[in-house]
Amino acid sequence: MITLAALQMKSESGDVAANLARIEAAAKEAATKGASLLMTPELGITGYGGGEVVSGLAEPADGPIVQRLKAISSETGVAIIAGFAERDGEAVYNSAVYVDGDAAPVVYRKSHLYGDYERDLFAAAEPATHLFKHRGVTCGMLICYDVEFPENVRRLAQAGADAVLVPTALPAGWSGTFIADHMIQTRAFENQVFVAYINHCGSDERFSFAGLSRIAAPDGNLLASGGPRDEALMLVKIDPAAFNISKAENTYLSDLNRYAR
Amino acid sequence: MITLAALQMKSESGDVAANLARIEAAAKEAATKGASLLMTPELGITGYGGGEVVSGLAEPADGPIVQRLKAISSETGVAIIAGFAERDGEAVYNSAVYVDGDAAPVVYRKSHLYGDYERDLFAAAEPATHLFKHRGVTCGMLICYDVEFPENVRRLAQAGADAVLVPTALPAGWSGTFIADHMIQTRAFENQVFVAYINHCGSDERFSFAGLSRIAAPDGNLLASGGPRDEALMLVKIDPAAFNISKAENTYLSDLNRYAR
Repeated sequence: MITLAALQMKSESGDVAANLARIEAAAKEAATKGASLLMTPELGITGYGGGEVVSGLAEPADGPIVQRLKAISSETGVAIIAGFAERDGEAVYNSAVYVDGDAAPVVYRKSHLYGDYERDLFAAAEPATHLFKHRGVTCGMLICYDVEFPENVRRLAQAGADAVLVPTALPAGWSGTFIADHMIQTRAFENQVFVAYINHCGSDERFSFAGLSRIAAPDGNLLASGGPRDEALMLVKIDPAAFNISKAENTYLSDLNRYAR
Repeated sequence: MITLAALQMKSESGDVAANLARIEAAAKEAATKGASLLMTPELGITGYGGGEVVSGLAEPADGPIVQRLKAISSETGVAIIAGFAERDGEAVYNSAVYVDGDAAPVVYRKSHLYGDYERDLFAAAEPATHLFKHRGVTCGMLICYDVEFPENVRRLAQAGADAVLVPTALPAGWSGTFIADHMIQTRAFENQVFVAYINHCGSDERFSFAGLSRIAAPDGNLLASGGPRDEALMLVKIDPAAFNISKAENTYLSDLNRYAR
């Protein structure tokens, strides 16, 4: 059982130092509230909508951004999931990193890019399953549009994830509201996993964000929700064992194995 | 564009004649209201909860039940989807049949059986994709628990279905309410197809049913909902062309092809 802190965040577009400072402040607050893990949105460190400013801020996964996150994590004792533009040779990925003090970071690269905006800036990664244990809870990451494809959440659940952690940058509008109001809980329920879907709020030069972050339990219940406009630090208990009854009653994963041919 | 009539139905357990009469009355009402297709629940002709009474009423797909449905369809001009226990040699399947007057019926056999109750009575069929055109609309069928697996709806959508028609027998309770309130719309939205999920109401000797039938449009909006208790004949327009904007904005199927490897 862990306490997860999730920051629905207003990033400063293109201002890495300001966003790292905001994450540091949230990590300190999370620590005082007993959380061991802080989640932040997709590309929260660079901002989402800056276009070539974002890809221009790309760094390798052992660069200064991740080094700074490791230092914040070591100072506060809080592990951090944060989104950044990752350079690997000529390629730039839309990535999220899990850092836990001095341990080796875990990097997930977005596989399902959304629209021409993202496809112009980033390379699409192969769908990947990088599970990690955080204080006994098996976690996997996806980014934004990835979670809208049931195949991606299924893949992580079948590999053994208890929780699927999803930094996002969801624009305001009908589709965004639908995803927040129906799809995230469905992804949790149909796989009997936790799904934390943590968004930006406010707007940048290109996008107006929906807020409406969601943390859903394996039984489909919401554990926390962000509002449509403001920043929020949500704190929830992630206790897989508390949902053993739901998992025994909703046997999707074992029935999938039973019937899939 | 068609008008679909969907009957949230209180079946009489084990009373085939009464249930066929109820379906006949609904088909006549549907005809007066301009519908060309009538949907009814899972095992609506035999009742759902009668145990071995249900499997004991199994008939081949060219037996008297389907003959009677064809006669009702011919009389009324309304095609019918109805659930029955289907015998094929030694095997008994939980099946749904589409009849349209004298045309050859289309039979779909449930692939994902729910729990020991169903597995004791029925054989699980191979997951199958039997699409048919109804007045220009490409339709596929699933039954109840099948639709809770995103893989099954995806398979039909990728094969070209405009509408996925799902007779069901959903019990009352938390999971049932969750499925009705979140999952059916998510299945529609994530595939940009219509999903009609038509349930029993009332109770039989084993089960108390949730009602809460749902017909969702490709953009995730609900077109019709049944209440929790009573019978209801819902009438909706199924017009795939009316959702071309939603399909252009929510490109899940083409993006799945783009990124799946």
